[in-house]
Amino acid sequence: MEGTMKVVIKESPSAGAVIATKEIPKVGPNDILVKVAATSICGTDYHIYSWDAWSQKRIKTPRIMGHEFAGEVVEIGENVTRVKLGDIVSAETHVVCGKCELCATGKAHICKDTKILGVDTDGSFAEYVAIPEENAWINDPSIPPEYLCVQEPLGNAVHTVMSGEIIGKSIAVVGCGPIGIMAVAVAKAVSASKVIAIEVNEYRLALAKKLGADVVINPMKEDVVKRVLEETDGMGVDVVAEMSGNAVAIQQALEYIKLGGRMSMLGIPTKDVEIDIASLVFKGIQIHGITGRRMYDTWYQVKGLLASGNLNIDTIITHKLPLEAYEEGMELMKRGDCGKVVLFPNMNK
Amino acid sequence: MEGTMKVVIKESPSAGAVIATKEIPKVGPNDILVKVAATSICGTDYHIYSWDAWSQKRIKTPRIMGHEFAGEVVEIGENVTRVKLGDIVSAETHVVCGKCELCATGKAHICKDTKILGVDTDGSFAEYVAIPEENAWINDPSIPPEYLCVQEPLGNAVHTVMSGEIIGKSIAVVGCGPIGIMAVAVAKAVSASKVIAIEVNEYRLALAKKLGADVVINPMKEDVVKRVLEETDGMGVDVVAEMSGNAVAIQQALEYIKLGGRMSMLGIPTKDVEIDIASLVFKGIQIHGITGRRMYDTWYQVKGLLASGNLNIDTIITHKLPLEAYEEGMELMKRGDCGKVVLFPNMNK
Amino acid sequence: MEGTMKVVIKESPSAGAVIATKEIPKVGPNDILVKVAATSICGTDYHIYSWDAWSQKRIKTPRIMGHEFAGEVVEIGENVTRVKLGDIVSAETHVVCGKCELCATGKAHICKDTKILGVDTDGSFAEYVAIPEENAWINDPSIPPEYLCVQEPLGNAVHTVMSGEIIGKSIAVVGCGPIGIMAVAVAKAVSASKVIAIEVNEYRLALAKKLGADVVINPMKEDVVKRVLEETDGMGVDVVAEMSGNAVAIQQALEYIKLGGRMSMLGIPTKDVEIDIASLVFKGIQIHGITGRRMYDTWYQVKGLLASGNLNIDTIITHKLPLEAYEEGMELMKRGDCGKVVLFPNMNK
Amino acid sequence: MEGTMKVVIKESPSAGAVIATKEIPKVGPNDILVKVAATSICGTDYHIYSWDAWSQKRIKTPRIMGHEFAGEVVEIGENVTRVKLGDIVSAETHVVCGKCELCATGKAHICKDTKILGVDTDGSFAEYVAIPEENAWINDPSIPPEYLCVQEPLGNAVHTVMSGEIIGKSIAVVGCGPIGIMAVAVAKAVSASKVIAIEVNEYRLALAKKLGADVVINPMKEDVVKRVLEETDGMGVDVVAEMSGNAVAIQQALEYIKLGGRMSMLGIPTKDVEIDIASLVFKGIQIHGITGRRMYDTWYQVKGLLASGNLNIDTIITHKLPLEAYEEGMELMKRGDCGKVVLFPNMNK
Repeated sequence: MEGTMKVVIKESPSAGAVIATKEIPKVGPNDILVKVAATSICGTDYHIYSWDAWSQKRIKTPRIMGHEFAGEVVEIGENVTRVKLGDIVSAETHVVCGKCELCATGKAHICKDTKILGVDTDGSFAEYVAIPEENAWINDPSIPPEYLCVQEPLGNAVHTVMSGEIIGKSIAVVGCGPIGIMAVAVAKAVSASKVIAIEVNEYRLALAKKLGADVVINPMKEDVVKRVLEETDGMGVDVVAEMSGNAVAIQQALEYIKLGGRMSMLGIPTKDVEIDIASLVFKGIQIHGITGRRMYDTWYQVKGLLASGNLNIDTIITHKLPLEAYEEGMELMKRGDCGKVVLFPNMNK
Repeated sequence: MEGTMKVVIKESPSAGAVIATKEIPKVGPNDILVKVAATSICGTDYHIYSWDAWSQKRIKTPRIMGHEFAGEVVEIGENVTRVKLGDIVSAETHVVCGKCELCATGKAHICKDTKILGVDTDGSFAEYVAIPEENAWINDPSIPPEYLCVQEPLGNAVHTVMSGEIIGKSIAVVGCGPIGIMAVAVAKAVSASKVIAIEVNEYRLALAKKLGADVVINPMKEDVVKRVLEETDGMGVDVVAEMSGNAVAIQQALEYIKLGGRMSMLGIPTKDVEIDIASLVFKGIQIHGITGRRMYDTWYQVKGLLASGNLNIDTIITHKLPLEAYEEGMELMKRGDCGKVVLFPNMNK
Repeated sequence: MEGTMKVVIKESPSAGAVIATKEIPKVGPNDILVKVAATSICGTDYHIYSWDAWSQKRIKTPRIMGHEFAGEVVEIGENVTRVKLGDIVSAETHVVCGKCELCATGKAHICKDTKILGVDTDGSFAEYVAIPEENAWINDPSIPPEYLCVQEPLGNAVHTVMSGEIIGKSIAVVGCGPIGIMAVAVAKAVSASKVIAIEVNEYRLALAKKLGADVVINPMKEDVVKRVLEETDGMGVDVVAEMSGNAVAIQQALEYIKLGGRMSMLGIPTKDVEIDIASLVFKGIQIHGITGRRMYDTWYQVKGLLASGNLNIDTIITHKLPLEAYEEGMELMKRGDCGKVVLFPNMNK
Repeated sequence: MEGTMKVVIKESPSAGAVIATKEIPKVGPNDILVKVAATSICGTDYHIYSWDAWSQKRIKTPRIMGHEFAGEVVEIGENVTRVKLGDIVSAETHVVCGKCELCATGKAHICKDTKILGVDTDGSFAEYVAIPEENAWINDPSIPPEYLCVQEPLGNAVHTVMSGEIIGKSIAVVGCGPIGIMAVAVAKAVSASKVIAIEVNEYRLALAKKLGADVVINPMKEDVVKRVLEETDGMGVDVVAEMSGNAVAIQQALEYIKLGGRMSMLGIPTKDVEIDIASLVFKGIQIHGITGRRMYDTWYQVKGLLASGNLNIDTIITHKLPLEAYEEGMELMKRGDCGKVVLFPNMNK
């Protein structure tokens, strides 16, 4: 497709991003072009926007940001056979090699040669985005695009919560950013016995409560370890979904987790964390590092959960803005006074 | 405890049962005596009552029937240390050897030397019942006894539905007797993507609907295989919970189950069933024989599910009767126009 | 590559096959051409050769037979990127759609749209064979081709034996054709506690013994159920690897399998089998239908097992013949007096 | 049984231990008395002997040391029914409550109320030891006692190696003390693809080699991370069995473990370890804390492995000494120039 498009782009290696007009991406033989209907802001987008230490090492400018989206397929490459023009797709944002042992044995989400959409390639804060056919997830077109675009982070929450037993188990969700509150919703939807949300931001704590958290704890206001033990008959929680990346929160979690419990870790600490390995060994704890979404098992789980009707997606999306208001969205992410913020490249059309 | 009690007993090897007065059971050193508050009717109880072929081989009369119950501990044997007087308990009804490889490796529910309460020993259709301390499940006393007594069959449903992946998966529950409708409720509570109830009795089909079944099918009225495939995009269901023991239903299930699907079988056919093994092999199906409840993993799962607040137990219990009305209860079971029927030894006290 | 090649082909819908000269296959954009170094005879090949009922329904003539092979890549299609000229490859013989839910979730081996090499497309009883790049398994070139070509059926054995716990467990391998004796070798290599081989052909029984079977039973000569129970302290075997497809053998296996045991079924009965479902339920048995090899988890398991040095492949290959002697090979398969028979298109070159 | 016996006892809270004469233990109603035939030295025994920081907090003197043993049952308590006089038994050394959720759901090995034989109660460095019937493991009496007594630590090795997939996988065993070399032997016996032993003591490294380790690495002499990556095509090992408790070794293991790998940790660091959680998350690593032996799944696995004939126990036992030579044994443990050291209370009788 010839022509230009509106994008949100990081033009230079410094904080911020700008609205610009760029050429619509060319479509390679194995790619598809998607007209973006909705695209939501990930924590990673905010990291790039604010130009943190990780971004400075990883991001090459200019780079169009964004990777959570849904939209219509408007062009397909010559080798494309599965996806059709007019399909409403979302994207798995890990672009993998497809050839290595990990890709060949159901672990493509941790392929060594992963490129990430909107990080290593141009992303979806734009009117159009090109992705490999391989990465397209074909949606039920009757579902609104703002729900479809959050399937990707919802997949992170599902992957984390469901990396072991959860039905009838107690769970602490540590850190209630957008993926954390999704984890609360998922845990409630699959009948965890008790869902404990732990978060310092009161807006997000209230959101966790609204999504069904049985207990909410603000570690700035009370002793987390003591409270979790009280809420669990002194035994501790069966499962920890670690979304905070905070060293102290991780250390506390290892104190209040039940003997034999599972700690699934999605949050990324910025430096090494001192871990009481002796306690981890004696308690028989399992730790699972969680990256991305299992390709594509997690996507089918997300589809099934959405079909169940038990997931409260509506409450998770707290803000809908035009793409042009990306700075307002980034500001919300900075303050933490939001659930999921969704941007619309053509909001009023 | 000295004295006599009211019981429902099969006095002689023939159909029916009578109300009688018997001595309160003596308590051995490892046993406890429970004052029965509520006791529900199992299909097995109806088999014994109607004196079917299985009962004629297995049951030695006189035998007090019944094994699903809840009540207060009123006496404990000298070696008893875990259970206390005044505890409100339910019972795991498999009394196992505790010594064999199966008991020692988490498979006590299929111990070769299992004795079943109310089948091989005197049961709970009585004012008092004695059980080994080992088999007592201590309850939260704030929950009404009619809910507590149905934990045992609910455990069968949980064991069946949860013997493999279920979250976000489609499931067909085949046969909607009391355990079948519980399986529907469990599948809904854990966010199965679609729950299909299959049953010939319209009362029970309506009950399945009320408990949240997304699709209900009466095989007397429509082509089950065709309908299930239509409801699942031609792929078939991920999971079958086989509760009917009906040969044709089992054969149909193997037709409409998805490639790679799981069929968990709790229903007991009265004779051998012709199975298309070639198809089972080519489709990569898994079949799980399900007996009893995992001891005590399943009980903890039941506890957790009840704690989640997502299980609709109230709708499952359709009839509450005094113990003396056991014949009315048996008649309901015969006709199939009921969910769970609960008897109360002292209803109006 | 232009030119002609020697092939073993079923020219018409009747028993037998002929040697013929055919054009070397054309290579599509996603395909590779392999010069066959060694190709072994599968039971399926014998079914096609003898033109049994299944073959009459499935096979369209003319068809070059054969699917187990290893050889050098001599031509690659324009889209091929993973495989290189000169690579020594074997082939996964299930050519799958790569697009469906099963393919996307690690169950490609049971893809509904599977085409099988040498069954639905021309095979490897030839000097050259063309396959999709996707299906090529790149080998260590230092291993002799006769070992490399049997990785495919070895994968069936590994998939069957390893579809559940096996280390330290007792196992009965029922049917000791080529895959059965491989199952014996695999079970020994991973420290099954006791390996019991059951087979009517004395040659194969001797082969099982040579490969390390702790017990060999000829059901024509003794009571299988009684003997297996004697060999397992009356408890039965933990695992059954069903390779026979024989109805009576399957029924006996369900008698001598341990409570809670696993029966993995690879053999294909020619008609329905009467199964004692009640016993399967009460015993808490698991049945796994096994098809093909997990793509490509099983191939990596095979690679790892070969690397361990514990697998005795040499004994498994009992006959090496020139391709032209295919009728001798088929005759061996018919009589059962063989392990694996390997054919060499250019034996003396 | 009345009378006195020879014991090795820690009489006072300081380094060392003495030979003494004590009363033969009294047998409670649920206990058995065992005449010790062989008892081996655990690292824990050496910790107590040398009176390290952990021992000073945990051990109350006087205390008879030792917990790995085998011997004949010479007296049984009045409630004992499973164990018989004359049985040759070993002992599970975790004495658990038997009542809590963990005990009731197959996780008794991490029961909160665990007491350890020879640590919290008098142990087996003695002519007689009393244990609960519950903890007795009945052996095949034809196996020599020095093999039977090492089943307990062998269980630790089996639990560690088999806490996830291992067949056909590469494994690094970090720390080749007695349990480490057992882990090497177990990994070889179950056909790990490559077994890499890492250890600073050359005697133990040689022992690992003798037991079949494919690669041995002395981290004092070469770059461990570099070497492991070289030995695994740059991918890293699938599994790490962490037996060292050494902070640097743990950090290195997280570098050379494969993406998606499993690290099972049995070694106990003396203080917190700085862990690169970000890397653990991105690599999708699983960490399993391993304590004791699963009760009694692990014991049955050990039994099955011994029955397979593939385990080389003989090489593991490097020293056999009379009980009186315990100081020589402790000295060997201190220097590390040993595999398993077995003591015999009545060596020459």
